Amino acid sequence: MSEQTEEQRPSPSRRALIGWGGAGLALGAAAAGGVAAAVGTSDRTEPAAESGGAVPFHGRHQAGIATAVQDRLHFAAFDVLTDDRAELVALLKEWTKAAAAMTAGRPVGEGAVGGLAEAPPDDTGEALGLKPSRLTLTVGFGPGLFEDAKGRDRFGLRKHRPKALVDLPKFPGDNLDAARSGGDLCVQACADDPQVAVHAIRNLARIGMGNVAIRWSQLGFGKTSSTTPDAQTPRNMMGFKDGTANIAGTDTAGLDKHVWVSEKDGPDWLVGGSYLVARRIRMHIETWDRASLKEQEDVFGRDKAEGAPQGKQREHDQPNLKAMLPTAHVRLAHPDSNGGIKILRRGYSFTDGTDGLGRLDAGLFFIAYQRDVRDGFVPLQQRLAAHDALNEYIQHVGSALFAIPPGVRDADDWWGRALLS
Amino acid sequence: MSEQTEEQRPSPSRRALIGWGGAGLALGAAAAGGVAAAVGTSDRTEPAAESGGAVPFHGRHQAGIATAVQDRLHFAAFDVLTDDRAELVALLKEWTKAAAAMTAGRPVGEGAVGGLAEAPPDDTGEALGLKPSRLTLTVGFGPGLFEDAKGRDRFGLRKHRPKALVDLPKFPGDNLDAARSGGDLCVQACADDPQVAVHAIRNLARIGMGNVAIRWSQLGFGKTSSTTPDAQTPRNMMGFKDGTANIAGTDTAGLDKHVWVSEKDGPDWLVGGSYLVARRIRMHIETWDRASLKEQEDVFGRDKAEGAPQGKQREHDQPNLKAMLPTAHVRLAHPDSNGGIKILRRGYSFTDGTDGLGRLDAGLFFIAYQRDVRDGFVPLQQRLAAHDALNEYIQHVGSALFAIPPGVRDADDWWGRALLS
Repeated sequence: MSEQTEEQRPSPSRRALIGWGGAGLALGAAAAGGVAAAVGTSDRTEPAAESGGAVPFHGRHQAGIATAVQDRLHFAAFDVLTDDRAELVALLKEWTKAAAAMTAGRPVGEGAVGGLAEAPPDDTGEALGLKPSRLTLTVGFGPGLFEDAKGRDRFGLRKHRPKALVDLPKFPGDNLDAARSGGDLCVQACADDPQVAVHAIRNLARIGMGNVAIRWSQLGFGKTSSTTPDAQTPRNMMGFKDGTANIAGTDTAGLDKHVWVSEKDGPDWLVGGSYLVARRIRMHIETWDRASLKEQEDVFGRDKAEGAPQGKQREHDQPNLKAMLPTAHVRLAHPDSNGGIKILRRGYSFTDGTDGLGRLDAGLFFIAYQRDVRDGFVPLQQRLAAHDALNEYIQHVGSALFAIPPGVRDADDWWGRALLS
Repeated sequence: MSEQTEEQRPSPSRRALIGWGGAGLALGAAAAGGVAAAVGTSDRTEPAAESGGAVPFHGRHQAGIATAVQDRLHFAAFDVLTDDRAELVALLKEWTKAAAAMTAGRPVGEGAVGGLAEAPPDDTGEALGLKPSRLTLTVGFGPGLFEDAKGRDRFGLRKHRPKALVDLPKFPGDNLDAARSGGDLCVQACADDPQVAVHAIRNLARIGMGNVAIRWSQLGFGKTSSTTPDAQTPRNMMGFKDGTANIAGTDTAGLDKHVWVSEKDGPDWLVGGSYLVARRIRMHIETWDRASLKEQEDVFGRDKAEGAPQGKQREHDQPNLKAMLPTAHVRLAHPDSNGGIKILRRGYSFTDGTDGLGRLDAGLFFIAYQRDVRDGFVPLQQRLAAHDALNEYIQHVGSALFAIPPGVRDADDWWGRALLS
């Protein structure tokens, strides 16, 4: 194990000093953070973390992509308000430091709650006493960072814009709300406890106050570790198992082929990173609930109860695509129908109350990671938007694309260093 | 144990028939439902349920009030669209039957996913394979059921309106949104898995289609069983421990005194029931986060780190109210400052994205149960609204009051039978 820097040393945390029941856990988490930094330059992409434990923050790739999916999501897109490159750099450095602390289960800053009484606390406090809850924070850079809507190159980054960071085409059926789309920066916070994910986004927003503002944000839920049997694929809000044929976080070859940006792809600053597509997909729940079981199963190309491909018995049986309607979702989305395209899906269900017309505002917050959207989400969605029988029951209402920089290697590194220094 | 009715008999559920890993759990839950019915007429108010297990549906009081607080909330208020009393009765009967099934971990209806292929499934399916997750469903009747906004007595219930089902006064500082207030009916769904709570509300809405429409709904989160040490009081979105001095669900005397409507209180149909006040309390998170630690602690009258009353060492130390500012929240809300008023609080934190101005739409969805709001929430909130230092940082933006009928005794009983038959 390498010599520990101050960042990594498991010094007594605030939680320990104030004598909480959870202090032992907090110390354990800090120690785990140290270990993570030590293995940070390895190829390890799937850190093992107990439920409630800490996922290593440092590494070749950012955590939160190949990491086993956590139960809850708080995703935020930010507008950058400042035009000053130095302020952007300072923000990203401060965010990195805060993220290293929070993912290890420590509060932001040195003072935390016990800081100067006459100053605002360094940490807002609502995660004090909670476990790290496998929190991951994953940062992305939107097109606006390289050239804003007015065509200005505020930070001298235009020449570094990756070719694959395209403006997504308008797909048939899109009904995008600008207030739920785009953003100069994004942070994906995933954790097994929603309060931990919300705390993380809120503290990053607070740190950035004046330099960034939240443009939109989305909460989501998936499985619940304590109540969902491990082997089960979660069901979406339409009641169907979804994401059966995903790339596993342990499939190193699959990740290299479909997810991580390689040196051959470039640009250099993005090697080891990826691209994130986010789509807020509203489901017309009430219409769906009036559709017959046969219609629902034909639309997906799956049996509803077991989740098996039509004509098969079990969820993971090899699908016979020709047994499905040509418009069936599974058939159209399958790699065999798309020249082998695979994306890493990491979506969450959402329910955001009602829409003012008595209808649930519910659906799927789709998140996908891939090496190049031009060979990934774009052709796949063009196919789905044109033909998918599911389109009668869904509508894409939000959209964003971000370049995901590689991981933060150690305590001296920071999000975006290769791009901005 | 009494003879089991069909409702209670643990017949092979859909989950068992389709051979899922979770089938054993579903059967266990159905069996537990039978036991619950058998003890339903006892005084048992605090059913013991393992995490993920089933909370008995039948009983003297509705579950979800004295029940140990679950991790997640989906609360929905409904407008009744029909003017036909028979349709209202049919709806409440069907809701009761569906609730008995869902709280036991069974899907709605007989057919569930395996029903007639040409008909919509009886159950929407997204909770298939999930544990009961301690789901409770608690129904309430709003003022509009007894007399609607136009002064009409649609269901012949005006004469049965409880005197305590008042129109809440306008409190200083209220900024109520009509679209997030009121409702003729409410359902509080609590569960340890958000998907289970959302599934329940969605299926009740689906069953009621045409006769009721969701007026507003709210998701919330509290502690997370798998990651929060049991002994800890959860922190609110201001980072403070909240609800330390609540009535415990096991405190039978306290519940009788402060929560359950007695024969002396009346009306007869409500004996064993309660009153539910819901308030959506938005927190001005960004302003709060700029307040000094001293200001924050003075506002609450608590130390932030430990949660101890000011001048004391531990959260549960007896507070010395005079050591706090006269405007401190704990001092003003304490029973000793309010002639002994106690309410049973069951609130959840919420974060509903952002408000269009880059500010988090976050706060507390306050739920309180009490025997009579005229001796409970109303005088307490009048005092708080007039003096509480916290008012600088919060705003009440939604409000509703419901009469909570007693529990459903057995499989022949239904929600509201004593009022409507």
